[in-house]
Amino acid sequence: MPIITLTTDFGEKDHFAGAVKGAIYSEMEDAKIVDISHSVSPFHLHEAAYIIQNAYKSFPSGTIHVIGVDSELNPENKHIAVLMDGHYFVCADNGIISMLTSEIRPEKIVEINIHDRVTSNFPVLDVFVKVAGHIARGGTLDVIGKNITEIKELTGIRPAVSNKDSTISGTVIYIDNYGNVISNITKKLFEEVGRGRDFVINARRHEFNKIHTHYSDAINFDNSPDKREEDGKRLALWNSSNYLELAIYKSSSKTVGSAASLFGLDYRDTIMVNFTP
Amino acid sequence: MPIITLTTDFGEKDHFAGAVKGAIYSEMEDAKIVDISHSVSPFHLHEAAYIIQNAYKSFPSGTIHVIGVDSELNPENKHIAVLMDGHYFVCADNGIISMLTSEIRPEKIVEINIHDRVTSNFPVLDVFVKVAGHIARGGTLDVIGKNITEIKELTGIRPAVSNKDSTISGTVIYIDNYGNVISNITKKLFEEVGRGRDFVINARRHEFNKIHTHYSDAINFDNSPDKREEDGKRLALWNSSNYLELAIYKSSSKTVGSAASLFGLDYRDTIMVNFTP
Amino acid sequence: MPIITLTTDFGEKDHFAGAVKGAIYSEMEDAKIVDISHSVSPFHLHEAAYIIQNAYKSFPSGTIHVIGVDSELNPENKHIAVLMDGHYFVCADNGIISMLTSEIRPEKIVEINIHDRVTSNFPVLDVFVKVAGHIARGGTLDVIGKNITEIKELTGIRPAVSNKDSTISGTVIYIDNYGNVISNITKKLFEEVGRGRDFVINARRHEFNKIHTHYSDAINFDNSPDKREEDGKRLALWNSSNYLELAIYKSSSKTVGSAASLFGLDYRDTIMVNFTP
Repeated sequence: MPIITLTTDFGEKDHFAGAVKGAIYSEMEDAKIVDISHSVSPFHLHEAAYIIQNAYKSFPSGTIHVIGVDSELNPENKHIAVLMDGHYFVCADNGIISMLTSEIRPEKIVEINIHDRVTSNFPVLDVFVKVAGHIARGGTLDVIGKNITEIKELTGIRPAVSNKDSTISGTVIYIDNYGNVISNITKKLFEEVGRGRDFVINARRHEFNKIHTHYSDAINFDNSPDKREEDGKRLALWNSSNYLELAIYKSSSKTVGSAASLFGLDYRDTIMVNFTP
Repeated sequence: MPIITLTTDFGEKDHFAGAVKGAIYSEMEDAKIVDISHSVSPFHLHEAAYIIQNAYKSFPSGTIHVIGVDSELNPENKHIAVLMDGHYFVCADNGIISMLTSEIRPEKIVEINIHDRVTSNFPVLDVFVKVAGHIARGGTLDVIGKNITEIKELTGIRPAVSNKDSTISGTVIYIDNYGNVISNITKKLFEEVGRGRDFVINARRHEFNKIHTHYSDAINFDNSPDKREEDGKRLALWNSSNYLELAIYKSSSKTVGSAASLFGLDYRDTIMVNFTP
Repeated sequence: MPIITLTTDFGEKDHFAGAVKGAIYSEMEDAKIVDISHSVSPFHLHEAAYIIQNAYKSFPSGTIHVIGVDSELNPENKHIAVLMDGHYFVCADNGIISMLTSEIRPEKIVEINIHDRVTSNFPVLDVFVKVAGHIARGGTLDVIGKNITEIKELTGIRPAVSNKDSTISGTVIYIDNYGNVISNITKKLFEEVGRGRDFVINARRHEFNKIHTHYSDAINFDNSPDKREEDGKRLALWNSSNYLELAIYKSSSKTVGSAASLFGLDYRDTIMVNFTP
């Protein structure tokens, strides 16, 4: 029995996530359900896309990922099921999947058409659970939907590269639990455009000219403890998802402050990389 | 092995929920544990009742629902186990169950009397887990308690209907993760009292004279995007639990505002339905 | 297959916890994963130690506890695996385990040395999951690390006892979900030092001269309801983990106030016990 994951904006408190898990067990007694996140900000497609993109790859091939964000069926918000990279995604066609398809080509996309068989106004609970159950039992996507080739694009997820490859203009797409600031600039794009040249990263009035790979790189452990943190423990690094991240070593929004608060950066703010000509 | 669900006010951070899950696995190696919610506001009986009422029905028959809210044993707070609607509920007799019994008659209620066999002051961890284990292994309620017929009533959960059936006076019982405002007025009561008559819903200075079934009904998709949201995207609807809800389409407390903040409504505020004579 | 528990500061929203659960299922199809907490304050070693210490004992012997707090490998933060009290702990050697070892002697401690086989900068996802998988399959600690005898001590976790045993000077180590204030003074230490003598507990301007065992002890149920709460419902008690706790009966930080807010106590504040000579 494959795993079914849940990524939603239902929050931690309400009955929604519990009800969906109950419906999955009612449909499949032996289901393996994994909560990825129920704390996506309400209707925040970029957050949902970033979270599912960075979580799904760890799961075994064949896992079914149910995404319950902005999922009410309406004339401009269809329900889709997608097979991509060996994983299944069941969600609304609201752009979330386009962040994943920017790197990987889907093997199959169907527009779900079983709505005549379900009646509630809680589509994750009935439509998505029914579709997940069908896939889990080995059913094909063709039985629950019709083939489509186009899905909705999420705007603003791709950084802009200047004509002469001298700059990458990215934006903040996520602030994590530590208050670290994650841009939409991937290591792959950076290396393609930069070709090993020197660079300066600008974010408001802050500059970085090196990109590290560990948070501890902000500390020089050869120095005595009182002289270690010459740079205020701030650094740019490639995070574990290979996005350019601006971080503070051991930050905490509630106590010592975070990259987001100390750099004054928020969702959608600009982060520029200027390469040396 | 039946499912055991947990609905508590333990919060997401403390060790309580983890310790209870460990105790369940120690009691039953093959337990299937489902977290419904650990974020009920501390000691908030109405919230707990609303959450469990709307989550339990999705689970398979025979599921055991452990409710850990205001569960310390004292002379006025007994422990009970209830069989109702094919489900088991293990909790304190503090009124939470009365919200469920207002619609469905329990098949059996016992006052738990195994306290001489347990010693800690963490009743969910020992008493409730022991009772859940007993039920999960197929034991009867009579072995762990004595039959009772009366349980404590939660006050203020039922709306008042005026003598001549001209008004229903309800109250706000829950604000959900999207900031939508849920009243204690059910579709069943509304239709019994209203008998198809026109009506006006009043909540502070806001009026609604239609009750929708989908959040998207706030939008007229036939209009061009800039003219769609004539009514500020606000609406009254029957939510997926069939309660009268006042909502904002795609609201978010943190950004665009929510029904609760924009309508100025909070827990226990009044929502009136006035039917046309 | 043993249980694998997770205690981290990843938060409820980000992809980290979901990704780790996916990696565990990829490593062990039949894994039983239990979330203890993902809401430890970022890098808060005392909180993590308090939570894991009070949760682990409920789990069956042989359970593997993965602790993902301050886990990045650096010259001063090694990775360790510990067998203690029949349980396994996989974490960084940052002091968290020392709170547990202050009461129980570890059977075995190894410094993990499989880092040449893993490459990412997300150590919980790769190193800790690999180690947990190895242990779950029955492997010995010697295969994944080298024996060590010393681990890092967490400072400030032990109360000070005055020379003549007349006072215990403790500190606040945790504020729980109800706002109750937990000190580092254990019942065991209190009884050893106090030897049955009378005492006064001082916390800021508040005094307590009795330590209860139930929150309901703040209420005299023999009195009529309006005369019951003579002492403002405040009390000192031995909590379910046998730490000295200052509490308010049925408190809530958001509404009626909590022990922390009403007593003006916070993490690291002093709580004194003065015994009668």
